[in-house]
Amino acid sequence: MRGTTNVTVQESTTGADPKGGRPVLPSRGRQRPLGMGETTLTGGFWATLQQTNATATLAHCEQWMEHLGWLANFDRVADGTTGPDRAGWSFADSEVYKLIEALAWEHGRSGDQVYDDAVRRLTARIARAQDADGYLNTCFGHAGQQPRYSDLEFGHELYCTGHLLQAAVARLRTTGPDDLVAVARRAADHVCDTFGPDGLPGICGHPEIEVGLAELGRALGDSRYVEQARLFLDRRGHGTLKDIPLGRAYFQDDEPIRTAGTWRGHAVRALYLSAAAVDVAVEQEDPELLAAVERQWANAVARRTHLTGGMGSRHQDEGFGEDWELPPDRAYCETCAGVASVMVSWRLYLATGDVRYADLIERTFFNIIATSPRSDGRAFFYANPLQQRVPGAASDDDAVSPRAEGGSRAAWFDVSCCPTNVARTLATWHTYLATAGRHELTLLHYAGARIEAELGDGRIVSLEVETDYPRDGLVTVRVVRAPEGPVALRLRVPAWARGAVLDEGGRRRPVEPGLAAVDRALDPGEEIRLHLPMTPRFTWPDRRIDALRGCVAVERGPLVYCAESVDLPEGTELDDLTVDIRAEPLDQDGRVTVRVFRNHRRDPEPAWPYGTSADGGGTSTTASTELALVPYHRWAERGPTGMRVWLPIVHPAPVGSP
Amino acid sequence: MRGTTNVTVQESTTGADPKGGRPVLPSRGRQRPLGMGETTLTGGFWATLQQTNATATLAHCEQWMEHLGWLANFDRVADGTTGPDRAGWSFADSEVYKLIEALAWEHGRSGDQVYDDAVRRLTARIARAQDADGYLNTCFGHAGQQPRYSDLEFGHELYCTGHLLQAAVARLRTTGPDDLVAVARRAADHVCDTFGPDGLPGICGHPEIEVGLAELGRALGDSRYVEQARLFLDRRGHGTLKDIPLGRAYFQDDEPIRTAGTWRGHAVRALYLSAAAVDVAVEQEDPELLAAVERQWANAVARRTHLTGGMGSRHQDEGFGEDWELPPDRAYCETCAGVASVMVSWRLYLATGDVRYADLIERTFFNIIATSPRSDGRAFFYANPLQQRVPGAASDDDAVSPRAEGGSRAAWFDVSCCPTNVARTLATWHTYLATAGRHELTLLHYAGARIEAELGDGRIVSLEVETDYPRDGLVTVRVVRAPEGPVALRLRVPAWARGAVLDEGGRRRPVEPGLAAVDRALDPGEEIRLHLPMTPRFTWPDRRIDALRGCVAVERGPLVYCAESVDLPEGTELDDLTVDIRAEPLDQDGRVTVRVFRNHRRDPEPAWPYGTSADGGGTSTTASTELALVPYHRWAERGPTGMRVWLPIVHPAPVGSP
Repeated sequence: MRGTTNVTVQESTTGADPKGGRPVLPSRGRQRPLGMGETTLTGGFWATLQQTNATATLAHCEQWMEHLGWLANFDRVADGTTGPDRAGWSFADSEVYKLIEALAWEHGRSGDQVYDDAVRRLTARIARAQDADGYLNTCFGHAGQQPRYSDLEFGHELYCTGHLLQAAVARLRTTGPDDLVAVARRAADHVCDTFGPDGLPGICGHPEIEVGLAELGRALGDSRYVEQARLFLDRRGHGTLKDIPLGRAYFQDDEPIRTAGTWRGHAVRALYLSAAAVDVAVEQEDPELLAAVERQWANAVARRTHLTGGMGSRHQDEGFGEDWELPPDRAYCETCAGVASVMVSWRLYLATGDVRYADLIERTFFNIIATSPRSDGRAFFYANPLQQRVPGAASDDDAVSPRAEGGSRAAWFDVSCCPTNVARTLATWHTYLATAGRHELTLLHYAGARIEAELGDGRIVSLEVETDYPRDGLVTVRVVRAPEGPVALRLRVPAWARGAVLDEGGRRRPVEPGLAAVDRALDPGEEIRLHLPMTPRFTWPDRRIDALRGCVAVERGPLVYCAESVDLPEGTELDDLTVDIRAEPLDQDGRVTVRVFRNHRRDPEPAWPYGTSADGGGTSTTASTELALVPYHRWAERGPTGMRVWLPIVHPAPVGSP
Repeated sequence: MRGTTNVTVQESTTGADPKGGRPVLPSRGRQRPLGMGETTLTGGFWATLQQTNATATLAHCEQWMEHLGWLANFDRVADGTTGPDRAGWSFADSEVYKLIEALAWEHGRSGDQVYDDAVRRLTARIARAQDADGYLNTCFGHAGQQPRYSDLEFGHELYCTGHLLQAAVARLRTTGPDDLVAVARRAADHVCDTFGPDGLPGICGHPEIEVGLAELGRALGDSRYVEQARLFLDRRGHGTLKDIPLGRAYFQDDEPIRTAGTWRGHAVRALYLSAAAVDVAVEQEDPELLAAVERQWANAVARRTHLTGGMGSRHQDEGFGEDWELPPDRAYCETCAGVASVMVSWRLYLATGDVRYADLIERTFFNIIATSPRSDGRAFFYANPLQQRVPGAASDDDAVSPRAEGGSRAAWFDVSCCPTNVARTLATWHTYLATAGRHELTLLHYAGARIEAELGDGRIVSLEVETDYPRDGLVTVRVVRAPEGPVALRLRVPAWARGAVLDEGGRRRPVEPGLAAVDRALDPGEEIRLHLPMTPRFTWPDRRIDALRGCVAVERGPLVYCAESVDLPEGTELDDLTVDIRAEPLDQDGRVTVRVFRNHRRDPEPAWPYGTSADGGGTSTTASTELALVPYHRWAERGPTGMRVWLPIVHPAPVGSP
């Protein structure tokens, strides 16, 4: 199998993770993810987000779920008082499980007992609601409810179970087996018994059970769970579910995953499914299945992905849309699709060692995952459009937002999948920092951190990373402890970082995007410095992206920038601006600026907006002036505002010659 | 009241229409619409469509409704056999009523007994289902059904009743009072009794009852119905309905119609509501209400309308979207919204005499109404996007299409509002041809026709129009019979027709867009010739329409043109083309062509589509070659195909200076 056989990295089949926990731990692959015992953030961009997640977001999520009765749903099943007035959507249980998963990881990360207590408290309530045969769901199968598995298309039962299994994996790998793990095992066994080769031939409308089963199978060394995941994967794509108005592509039941060419339909569904497919491909040494996901990744990233890494162009079905359908204003780019995209890319990177996957992860981390939570960790973006024409309403932190739009972060949503997804991702962010191979250690992301990693050959490398990235492009790696003999140290040079320089062993040398290599014995105390070029740059879209024609964006390092209407002079609107591309964007002490022309409007009366003149709408232009941009991930932090990532240009360059 | 008091045109308060029938007959206004007894099409574009509608579409619709059980729903109510398995959506009754309306108009137009028989046959089945108190609906209020008016947001009960009243108006104005009219009166009285000033304070989630009540009130001279329409109008916009996930703007319950600035939410709902508002404003001499609709029309036409006249930019809610949100690929432009747009513009034109409204009507007629039906009248477009990236599936004439997308016309839809809406519009198309004022006759649209109109002063003008419009720009108006004294003959010169020439009374003179005037006595036998310039032209979008930046469209006369992938050489895709705007589009014996460059693709491997080079995607270009375009209204007539109205240009012109 391509790229997955050279290193076998599985360290335990009993569940507890000697490296301190990590969400994904394949049995084999090019790269082994470091565990929480091997990496610690010491400060900077992600440490701040991780700290806010721990101190604000986790309690915020639990409070909302208690307030809305999503937790009490479990008590009511346990007490036999279910009825037609159950709180929340059918998938509300999954939010509880994602919160438990996040709490478990945060306990594993910080060792703080408060998170362990919370897991135990929530586990106790959940466990009481489990039926004798292992079935656990608060929406189906009890008095006054629809029968179990009577609505596979939209009932989300197996989806919820999948999140329960992921929560149990977090617990297994941080504290070892406990009550939650026991509940999850019973639930997983029930699923295998019910939907096994001789059972119901169904699948869940929302993939997730597959990735939960695969990881629980890995964590417990139980191949039956992995095989059940494979069975679900291969059952899909044959019209197994009922047709729906949005079509079977919505839940990827239109074509088998092994033959499909690209991602389509509901983005989160497509991506959770692909994450599971990589897991199964790796565990069962199935190169066809791995190649299928790699192909779908490549095609969707080339033609169905926004500059931010965001996926999903349609509100109607929260779906991908077609190739080149990438409207900035109606970009959906659900936060959860960002989480799911990281899940897929991470698994592909571990299997193949290809840094393209890490490039997309970094882009998605900085421009989707970091964009969703408000600075205080108590409100979130659900959709992440690249253009906001009309400023959203001021947020009301006491209200449940009904919709995935609006231009301001919301404290909670009617469908509130994103906050807990962000929470579980941030709690494990440091486990994406670096990976180990047989003799090599690869730094993928740059943050202030301590790393003490065990290589595949058993040797230990201990490093300290100092950096103010992404504010600054200097990354200093200090060797704290070095093993005997040569070490293959790798530093990822992001795809955008042309002109990067590596300063090590007494010499400075240019390094290309990809992996910069240091192949030698390391000296304790020595410093290796990577200089990433952080000059702001214009970014142009492929000519086939109709919705972006005649526009440029500005990026700096891994960050996408945007213009906000709150930064414009009175009487000017975002639509009035065009960028003077003859002047490069500037970085003035961390403040990124472009020069813009302001186009005076001359339409006092509304008029037909199509005409025989190329200046349609009629404009005249001032001399260019400076406009400050802000990182996209911090937009709308100063209140409701209009926003544009893609800025029209004065003199659109030819899209071809002559 | 601005523009509505100078001429009172009401001719009858007993229902039957001495002019042979017309859908709209205000009591006053600048212009009086001609009736079916005053106009006849003699050949050409619209006569063909009207004939196909009569001979194919009407029977097609009845067959599908019989097949799907939508007609039997009435029998089941009558027989007391209703149950939970009722066929179709809650609004299926309205399709039956729209079909009856179309049949009644076609009977009025052609005098063919077969259509009268069909009306009687269907009326008999409907009448049996009416409850003793006048309530008539097959979805609510009977055994096994929800109670009456228990779901005003989405139940569509009053919506259905509104269409019943419009069908009755068609009957009243063609045959006079009959069983259908009696049924409709009872239903209207029931609505007034139930929802009157002292009744339920509700409104229907889908406006339509208002326009039905207003026109029935006019046809019967019953001001109570008009007043009930006003009451519904003024109740709306105060959060009268429950909030829904899409927000109250979806059904225009977010802001009163008198204060709203533009159209928003579901397009058909917004437009039916506005049509009713014009009716009420005219009947009750309410200048504030008329001005509100004029303002909303002006703003929405300037910023929320596609080049085709299509309205609605979002699939999610079939809604308008925001100002400048006009994506060609996801343009919804529902056929019914085109019908509804004509309804509003027609009423505004009659009230004010402003030809801007007629301009939009013509654009919508040729590019939305004429686009929907297949040439054989047995399949229809529901949505009318301006770009189709991936050719749709080949149509299956035996299948019900679940969705309003796909790029091929469908025989029938799960939600099948469009076919009957097209049918009732085509059956009355000739009543939009011309209007009469006190001393004037205005020709609004050009088609082979005979017109014998009575002016407001009682004099008769009789004309024959000969033209091959829109294939040719020559319109010959022959005076058949002329009254004593001067006549104010007006010929609309469309807004696009710069360079038009009027040849009359022995002289040729240039005429500007607007109304060309002939103010003199007419001589029987004389010919007045209008030459409209039919040279194809490039059309540019307003710079604020982000989705169209760097593109041009081609129009010729009232027709929008498009490129279809079936016309491209093997191996070329629509995305590969850019238009050479240095060469004007040509008309070669009716074949419209542009010169295009073909951009060779050089991306054998999928790659990240954003980069530092302005030729993103990488292209090189051949010498330009000729490409034939087709009128948009005939796209996809040669099978599934990709399509573009807006074509990228090689050298985008500056959107400002310098």
